[in-house]
Amino acid sequence: MAGFRLFCRARSQHYGFVRHISRRFSGVSSCLEYHQYGDPLQVVKKSEKTIPELKDNEVLVKMLAATVNPADINTIQGVYAVKPPLPSIPGNEGVGRIVKVGNSVAGDLQPGDHVIPRINAWGTWRDYAVASHTELIKIPSDVDVATAATIAVNPCTAYRMLKDFVPLKEGDTIIQNGGNSAVGQAVIQIAAAFGWRTINVVRDRPTIDELKEKLTKLGATVVVTEEELRKSEAVQALPKPSLALNCVSGRSGTEILRQLSPQGVMVTYGGMSRKPVTVPVGSLIFSDVTLKGFWMTRWNKNHFSHPERENMLNKLFDLVKQGRLCPPDHAMVQFEDYKTALKDAMPSDGMVGKKQILVFQ
Amino acid sequence: MAGFRLFCRARSQHYGFVRHISRRFSGVSSCLEYHQYGDPLQVVKKSEKTIPELKDNEVLVKMLAATVNPADINTIQGVYAVKPPLPSIPGNEGVGRIVKVGNSVAGDLQPGDHVIPRINAWGTWRDYAVASHTELIKIPSDVDVATAATIAVNPCTAYRMLKDFVPLKEGDTIIQNGGNSAVGQAVIQIAAAFGWRTINVVRDRPTIDELKEKLTKLGATVVVTEEELRKSEAVQALPKPSLALNCVSGRSGTEILRQLSPQGVMVTYGGMSRKPVTVPVGSLIFSDVTLKGFWMTRWNKNHFSHPERENMLNKLFDLVKQGRLCPPDHAMVQFEDYKTALKDAMPSDGMVGKKQILVFQ
Repeated sequence: MAGFRLFCRARSQHYGFVRHISRRFSGVSSCLEYHQYGDPLQVVKKSEKTIPELKDNEVLVKMLAATVNPADINTIQGVYAVKPPLPSIPGNEGVGRIVKVGNSVAGDLQPGDHVIPRINAWGTWRDYAVASHTELIKIPSDVDVATAATIAVNPCTAYRMLKDFVPLKEGDTIIQNGGNSAVGQAVIQIAAAFGWRTINVVRDRPTIDELKEKLTKLGATVVVTEEELRKSEAVQALPKPSLALNCVSGRSGTEILRQLSPQGVMVTYGGMSRKPVTVPVGSLIFSDVTLKGFWMTRWNKNHFSHPERENMLNKLFDLVKQGRLCPPDHAMVQFEDYKTALKDAMPSDGMVGKKQILVFQ
Repeated sequence: MAGFRLFCRARSQHYGFVRHISRRFSGVSSCLEYHQYGDPLQVVKKSEKTIPELKDNEVLVKMLAATVNPADINTIQGVYAVKPPLPSIPGNEGVGRIVKVGNSVAGDLQPGDHVIPRINAWGTWRDYAVASHTELIKIPSDVDVATAATIAVNPCTAYRMLKDFVPLKEGDTIIQNGGNSAVGQAVIQIAAAFGWRTINVVRDRPTIDELKEKLTKLGATVVVTEEELRKSEAVQALPKPSLALNCVSGRSGTEILRQLSPQGVMVTYGGMSRKPVTVPVGSLIFSDVTLKGFWMTRWNKNHFSHPERENMLNKLFDLVKQGRLCPPDHAMVQFEDYKTALKDAMPSDGMVGKKQILVFQ
């Protein structure tokens, strides 16, 4: 476990330098924007906007880093469940630093504080933003920006799915597919920190041994390919999982569903296979499994200012500070190179690429 | 509604005569039995057994009627989730009359009382049985035997699915496929009695108009074929259903799932299409629907002597007495003609046939 913490810390420190980079505020904000749905490489353009005077309840935020998530890409393509009015500044996730606060902003937001958006589709892909202070959540400012910029979507999704569906006790088993996805890696780390064991299903690949080693270092109990799952002795030696987390669907979803204990729950949060979830009738009737879905956007909306939201973030940042939760593999991409980030956020082979994080100078 | 009640009562009275038929107790029980799993017409044989002396806690039951359910057929075929030790007397469902009680049987079971089995796989396909009094539930003796013999599986399944998954309020909508199945007809009647509206999906057939009229008389709000469902104005005019009951699975299951309101629940209790349940990923993630299964056998096991079990039966018998719940289309078949009943319980075209009820003289 000591080695695992060191591994995390080394990565965090490597990207920590970014938070010291800034540029002088010019009164103009550079933002990415799209006026029509379509291919992100075609429709997303950079533009400049004059920053208005702050109203009493507003703050000026200098963005430090913003994540390019699959949901952002799908939103721009017009194929996501959320269709923001156009023109729209993309970006759900990112971290900024408060530069200036309006006259009536309560004392809990001060210049220098680090913040993440409280609302969905806030538009993080810009270097400066003016926003009502109610749209932002203060986070610890001593967390490296790569971690802070990627905390709100994937680790929060992992945390909620582990907390909200099945009461897990120490030693219980969870099974997931997409074990190497950003959520998958967060699941592994959070589960390990809470004493839950994980069966992690990944797709076979030439570098499978390295991947198994990497996920095991993160805290995975077992890592198997889809082909190995049914016959794995390591899987069979574990208690049957009561919770399955499915981001692939199709055959892979059915396979992890079949591993569930009676009364188990499968939570679907993605369909990377682009196929539906297929459920044997007997699993529902005789094994009494339940299928649910999870969407972080809805949870956030339903818990807009609920204390559990800050509570969750505090617990996740505690894990970060303990070296038990580190960001997924990522590339820090300068804002002006945003096209590279967009391109690399759309892997063509269906494999999970590095998380692309835009950084602002 | 008055016409509908009359319709029910007429049918009940027609079969009421059976409870007056009996034969003198000979000390020998005729039972159906099978020594190996296989084709029911081949493996089920009639045999005679000497009835033992009653122990203090036992009762002697003269069976009046016993139902041949699909689960009985599948159990005999060896393809059901329950595999009783062999040799086995089939039959989960039926009604009997107490002939004699042991010395220590509590006062709540008396000769003349009507009873149904409390336990699964009790073996109702026999004319006389000796059993512990704890294996039986007393029911009203003024209910016709066709209703009493068919209350425990289908109406109880319908009742629980309507009660246990979604809190329904008056005017709410339920959607179901297999609307003409025995459970489907019970759902229609119970829902109508409780003020819930039903969208009932049935397969197209030459006699579709008659079927629609029949189910509407039972209390169905809308009856549509699978092909009509998506474009039906009558369906679209109703509030979106929060509960879907699925006994078909395959494409039909997906179609009724698509009709659910956000946060709706689909309960699967059968797979008549012999295909799995297929769930669009977006239904789980964005519409937040839940998929559950229901199995009456498990519910009964988990509520073996729970007061809710008697409470449920009392409510169902109240509906029966009010003329609001009548048994499904059925054929009363003399015990010696059991092969006819077995054959007719296995329709070859996948359509729901008449419920076969064995009667004992």
